[in-house]
Amino acid sequence: MKVYSTRMANLNGTATREIFKLLSRPEIISFAGGLPATEALPVAAVGDIAAELLSRPDAYSLLQYGTTEGYVPLLNRIPELVGEFGIKCENGGTLVISGGQQGIDLVCKVFLNAGDTVLVEDPTYLAALQIFNSYEAKAVGVRAGEDGLDISDLENKIVEFKPKLIYLVPTFSNPTGKTYSESNRKEIAALTAKYGVYVVEDDPYARLRFSGDKINALYSYAKADNIIYITSFSKILSPGLRVGAAVGSAEIIRKMAICKQGTDLHTSLLAQAITAEYLKRGLLVPAVQKSLPLYKSRKDAMMSAIDKYMPSEYEHTKPDGGLFIWGEFKGCKLDTAKLLGKAVERNVAYIQGSVFYADGGGSNTIRLNYSNASELNIEKGIKSLGEFFKEIIYKEKKNG
Amino acid sequence: MKVYSTRMANLNGTATREIFKLLSRPEIISFAGGLPATEALPVAAVGDIAAELLSRPDAYSLLQYGTTEGYVPLLNRIPELVGEFGIKCENGGTLVISGGQQGIDLVCKVFLNAGDTVLVEDPTYLAALQIFNSYEAKAVGVRAGEDGLDISDLENKIVEFKPKLIYLVPTFSNPTGKTYSESNRKEIAALTAKYGVYVVEDDPYARLRFSGDKINALYSYAKADNIIYITSFSKILSPGLRVGAAVGSAEIIRKMAICKQGTDLHTSLLAQAITAEYLKRGLLVPAVQKSLPLYKSRKDAMMSAIDKYMPSEYEHTKPDGGLFIWGEFKGCKLDTAKLLGKAVERNVAYIQGSVFYADGGGSNTIRLNYSNASELNIEKGIKSLGEFFKEIIYKEKKNG
Repeated sequence: MKVYSTRMANLNGTATREIFKLLSRPEIISFAGGLPATEALPVAAVGDIAAELLSRPDAYSLLQYGTTEGYVPLLNRIPELVGEFGIKCENGGTLVISGGQQGIDLVCKVFLNAGDTVLVEDPTYLAALQIFNSYEAKAVGVRAGEDGLDISDLENKIVEFKPKLIYLVPTFSNPTGKTYSESNRKEIAALTAKYGVYVVEDDPYARLRFSGDKINALYSYAKADNIIYITSFSKILSPGLRVGAAVGSAEIIRKMAICKQGTDLHTSLLAQAITAEYLKRGLLVPAVQKSLPLYKSRKDAMMSAIDKYMPSEYEHTKPDGGLFIWGEFKGCKLDTAKLLGKAVERNVAYIQGSVFYADGGGSNTIRLNYSNASELNIEKGIKSLGEFFKEIIYKEKKNG
Repeated sequence: MKVYSTRMANLNGTATREIFKLLSRPEIISFAGGLPATEALPVAAVGDIAAELLSRPDAYSLLQYGTTEGYVPLLNRIPELVGEFGIKCENGGTLVISGGQQGIDLVCKVFLNAGDTVLVEDPTYLAALQIFNSYEAKAVGVRAGEDGLDISDLENKIVEFKPKLIYLVPTFSNPTGKTYSESNRKEIAALTAKYGVYVVEDDPYARLRFSGDKINALYSYAKADNIIYITSFSKILSPGLRVGAAVGSAEIIRKMAICKQGTDLHTSLLAQAITAEYLKRGLLVPAVQKSLPLYKSRKDAMMSAIDKYMPSEYEHTKPDGGLFIWGEFKGCKLDTAKLLGKAVERNVAYIQGSVFYADGGGSNTIRLNYSNASELNIEKGIKSLGEFFKEIIYKEKKNG
């Protein structure tokens, strides 16, 4: 085994890969994934745009090599897009990325050596933890409450661990669905500037808000050039296209572009051009607006099914947007990782919360995705899940 | 600067990035790049396929998330495709990659620790050297002749450096255009199996053969599970789509897929589906066949322009395929890197050979690309270049 790189010892590739396999079995009602609503994918518009782009006289240029930084008509649209969340791009750089995932990977490539520490909210995005593993970095969890990070825990851990990076999903977090308040964002911006720590703000969900007031990006409160903002078209246009964007200081973005050059040279040009034209035609905002009632009704369906069927011990978040409800079986000694197989036998899947924790823990938590199931299946699936967990908890209480 | 990872010290991102910038100035006749002939890009077919794919009832699935391993209808076509070069996939694994570049990067991610050695042919593909740098690995050059690697030098360097990987472009090499003979391939396969060294066979050009007999892939002569074969659709369909494939032992391909998951989750599904449908419709082989006379006439035009205009000191390869002619100004003490700026002042660009050398050297070599210029521009550009180098060499001889 010594022939492989040491980073491979940290990469087992189980969790999300197994989830995707579950999703492919048609009898399973899966709340395990993080897919946008299939009904919200603008198939007709993309088909129309692709046909039009490929019939233009300069269509050949979409099939040739492009520049690493990105397709210029798409790059030119990013400032307006992120501007809606208070971000100013004038003095910084912008880079097209092959989905938000690549953005996280490229920041890590620029900053992380083996043994470095990354602070994360506990719990945090599973795939980000896997990326940190691939750089042989150590992820350390920071406590968080309803309104965002616990600032004194953040400061203590900055002092104690001297992290290279802090990775955060401040709006409709994956996995919790929670959103940091404006004052929490200001405190994070000030504190990280004071200590000179770089922050990755991963923001794929901000537009999927169905209640509450819009909040500006953490980046917009930056007190220094220390925040790298990553957004993606995966949840608001199409995950299959694999297009996102990173915004940050010109120096960091340039370094990310150098790393991207070695990784995939550039993002698929046709996917970039489709995205650019979709934005140019003004389709993004109305399509997202149109999709929000669907997301809201699925979230509401899941909330009432949880009230109706899940054991009273299940305490959960009540998100204003995004894709996920997160909850804990308070006072129960459950291992939701071990129980998943038995739930799947009853044709319902969740994802065990423990995989989102940097330091382990969370064995009595689960994440539920509501965006990719019909209201009928949400009712049916949560009913199965509730009955399942009620039985488990009843047995547990009876036995001990 | 200590905030950045140590790998960034090795990555300046100059060479190919500057080349792309040169290409964008319209008055420049550039032989610096590696672009396929624009005329060979099947714009109409891709447009037709994209429109058809996106009007199917299951089109939404192309906009959803896909699996990391690749779009199944594309994966299913890879064995037949690589089978034409003697490769059998039955017992191995197959992975769709976002262009050949990503394949090299993923193999490195699986195998390389900082300080590891990679053996390469001297000279070799520039971007591969940059990828090895990004893993803080050391590239060591192996001598090569007309028919392939110098086997005794290869064996000596395997023994001396205990390399983790050997990276080779055995067919129509970038940058030389040379092809390893069958016997050379057999010797490489036997020797690397004997020493248990892993080999990356990078094979994007094999189908662009306009003279000589087809030769099977190095992989087809493998004596062990130690070869990873990487091919790409960039030179035979479209580089802008960013689609390629890797074939190797199931274990290595699985590890590459785990790494890919963290890097970009999966390759753009629309690009994969277009490629799959292009193959399904049987368009690849006839389109490539149709493009070969164009490539040949450009290569021939460049060969005769070189005979006509370049100084007699310029000794060069005579490729049977691929995109490049490589040559050395024999007995001349030139620094082609320094001279490039002056050549560009005369509106002609080449790429200095030194960037393709693992250990430096090659300062009197240049690589010329013939695939992306018209015959007229080839004549005009080589005339300028010949006059330029004749002046330089004349001055050099006069002064020294």
